[in-house]
Amino acid sequence: MEPIVATKPWERVRELLVEAEPHALVDYLDSLPADDIVRTVFRLTVDEQARLLTFLPPRTAAGLLDDVPEAHAADILDDLSAKEAASIVEELDSDMAADVLAELDADDLEEILRQMDPTDADEARQLISYPADSAGGLMMTEYLAFSGSTKIGDVVATVASQTADIPLYLLQQIMVISPLGRLRGAVNLSDMAFAEPNTRLNQFLQPIDSVLVTNRLEELEDFFDEHDEATAAPVLDERKHLLGVVRRRAVFEAISEKMDEDAMKRQGIIGGDELRSLPLRVRSGRRLSWLSVNILLNIVAASVIAMYQETLAAAIALAVFLPIVSDMSGCSGNQAVAVSMRELTLGIVRPEDVFRVWRKEIGVGLINGVALGLLLATAAWLWQQDIRLSIVVGAALALNTVIAVSIGGTIPLLLKGLKIDPALASGPALTTVTDMCGFFLVLSFASFALSM
Amino acid sequence: MEPIVATKPWERVRELLVEAEPHALVDYLDSLPADDIVRTVFRLTVDEQARLLTFLPPRTAAGLLDDVPEAHAADILDDLSAKEAASIVEELDSDMAADVLAELDADDLEEILRQMDPTDADEARQLISYPADSAGGLMMTEYLAFSGSTKIGDVVATVASQTADIPLYLLQQIMVISPLGRLRGAVNLSDMAFAEPNTRLNQFLQPIDSVLVTNRLEELEDFFDEHDEATAAPVLDERKHLLGVVRRRAVFEAISEKMDEDAMKRQGIIGGDELRSLPLRVRSGRRLSWLSVNILLNIVAASVIAMYQETLAAAIALAVFLPIVSDMSGCSGNQAVAVSMRELTLGIVRPEDVFRVWRKEIGVGLINGVALGLLLATAAWLWQQDIRLSIVVGAALALNTVIAVSIGGTIPLLLKGLKIDPALASGPALTTVTDMCGFFLVLSFASFALSM
Repeated sequence: MEPIVATKPWERVRELLVEAEPHALVDYLDSLPADDIVRTVFRLTVDEQARLLTFLPPRTAAGLLDDVPEAHAADILDDLSAKEAASIVEELDSDMAADVLAELDADDLEEILRQMDPTDADEARQLISYPADSAGGLMMTEYLAFSGSTKIGDVVATVASQTADIPLYLLQQIMVISPLGRLRGAVNLSDMAFAEPNTRLNQFLQPIDSVLVTNRLEELEDFFDEHDEATAAPVLDERKHLLGVVRRRAVFEAISEKMDEDAMKRQGIIGGDELRSLPLRVRSGRRLSWLSVNILLNIVAASVIAMYQETLAAAIALAVFLPIVSDMSGCSGNQAVAVSMRELTLGIVRPEDVFRVWRKEIGVGLINGVALGLLLATAAWLWQQDIRLSIVVGAALALNTVIAVSIGGTIPLLLKGLKIDPALASGPALTTVTDMCGFFLVLSFASFALSM
Repeated sequence: MEPIVATKPWERVRELLVEAEPHALVDYLDSLPADDIVRTVFRLTVDEQARLLTFLPPRTAAGLLDDVPEAHAADILDDLSAKEAASIVEELDSDMAADVLAELDADDLEEILRQMDPTDADEARQLISYPADSAGGLMMTEYLAFSGSTKIGDVVATVASQTADIPLYLLQQIMVISPLGRLRGAVNLSDMAFAEPNTRLNQFLQPIDSVLVTNRLEELEDFFDEHDEATAAPVLDERKHLLGVVRRRAVFEAISEKMDEDAMKRQGIIGGDELRSLPLRVRSGRRLSWLSVNILLNIVAASVIAMYQETLAAAIALAVFLPIVSDMSGCSGNQAVAVSMRELTLGIVRPEDVFRVWRKEIGVGLINGVALGLLLATAAWLWQQDIRLSIVVGAALALNTVIAVSIGGTIPLLLKGLKIDPALASGPALTTVTDMCGFFLVLSFASFALSM
């Protein structure tokens, strides 16, 4: 019997790349389960990934590119010739294309745009010029709009010939514009069914809500929340000219990307993105930039301990409790940060509610501070049977818990009010203060107790 | 001149509630900007919120309920009479209704269901019986399906009479079922336009992809990723009976809710939800349940310090560096956790890739460990001019950074492999080990240095 050797999918792809077998490669990728494909792609080097894309038909390559984070997609495009890159970018929906192109250097971008169809390139330039998280940055330029005097029969003929480029659901409402390109309303496809081909769009015209090209992600989210039915919204400039349509999908994706980024930032991944496929130098550099700020904050906080060396020497057992008090206060404070971040996201609180949030946290801080303080005091008693030690560490933890939730609950609101990203700065600001306070409380209480 | 007093929106709502002015209340809420409404609602007590809902027309009340987190929506319903609650629930889309009802106690649920239209109640019972994050739990039962022999004219007549209950975009494809309720395919609305009213659906039948009622959130996400165009998917049982449709919207909302929950869990909010409108007892209890586990882990970690009291007494300056080393290692480890969580979410890594991830982290750990170790050693030198102290704390931090990124990078994969929620457990597991290692390395290096 032959031994069965299970070849890993990425090894097989690599073989096919070396053998330069485009057809076999397409067939093989088709045979893989959908969730194996991303994993396989990321096992290849960026060079191999680029080579893979050139082997695939541009439309398939575009589909693959759509599945990887934008910054990484840009890295791969960078490795292709401008012409190859252009042919793939042209197959992406215009909103996705703009997102990927926006990640490129100006020079690489210009080279690729030069190789694209001039109309597509102009559209892409236009889309990239808007902020990425605005309606302009998220909209697509594939849509159909007609003058109100167009005959239904002509609309249907055009729709039938265009469906390949335009998502089907964007055709459920046909937009009607004035000769100068201003949006006048829309006609439901269902109203047009069975209409006489010679009647005109005007006859079925209904008002349609729209968004402004400058609207931000939160405003777009509100729009789609309020317009349950809408799969896309027309995007207008301030003089009501129709510039494009923004899809619910694009808004959803931008929101979930932002949530991912915020989660990464909170844990110290600056820029909100890192994949292990990035070069080691980049990965460790980005992480280090945040760590080096943090170590300085840590040294500042620990310097409080340095001021109390005599107290510590007189009661060395305190050294055991210093990290416990500071860590636990950090945990309590982080819980409060998490709740404030969520309430900010849901729109339940705003920066001006800081005093109200603080009052709400005080209660939790008092209850949990007393509970944790008693627990720690008991642990200290079991270990050393020293009542003074128990009281010092218990009281310090109780008080520092109140301080920690007060700061944790309010700091995201304060930072937001100061236009500083609360996802990035809340954590380090909180732990620096709670560490300092924790060390100070334990050691100053202890020095007072020793002096009695 | 009269003084201008700016009344806060919730104060005005409260007045109108007291004055029992339903019409004025509806008008006033209509006049508020959309993002003021949620904030206003959350300023009211749960009783006032319930009273507000009874004053509003059920459809408006349902719209409001749709905007608050499900657990909170259930709390409000709980405060209403079963009859009032039922009339509001009936106005929610069936997928949303099931989510809210699923949060209620069995008794309250049964009471409300009894007051509902029996068909709606049966549907709700059915939907609640599926896991919340499966196609069954996320689907809605408002859809239209016809036998293939139905005449186009009849389909159009039915569609025209039904649009109030069924989102417009669900009508872009008309589903065709067999007499036994099995899904046979679908007909595009655009293909039906201009068809002779006497032709039958069968003539335009096209295949349609579907999901299984047992499919999980990740599988649904994959489906919609692969079906760019789809705004909804038919949900079938294993014998291909059509049970409902799941909307892209519902899947997206479930995903973003899960991301929110994970972010909350990572910061110690068990259950993944807390709003400050909850009773103090509930809030502090939930937070405390996590904190009390954490304080035990902290005490275990700090007990390492207790074993080295003599070393500490001989070199009290070490006490300053213990929290720095443990905190910084925690930070480095958390960065690695964040990257692993992201790669797990994107499907780039799986539990079996643990060795590969570890190799990728070692490099970052070595570079950043040496950099941070040198920084801390320098700080120690500037403070004490003691070369042994510098070497001890620098080497301990360098080595502990390598340990921290190794654990941080691999622990989410290991936990996932063991079917433990990595969002919840990665943080505490990581910091407990890095704290213990940090304390041990500093103190054992120091005791070795002192013994020389």
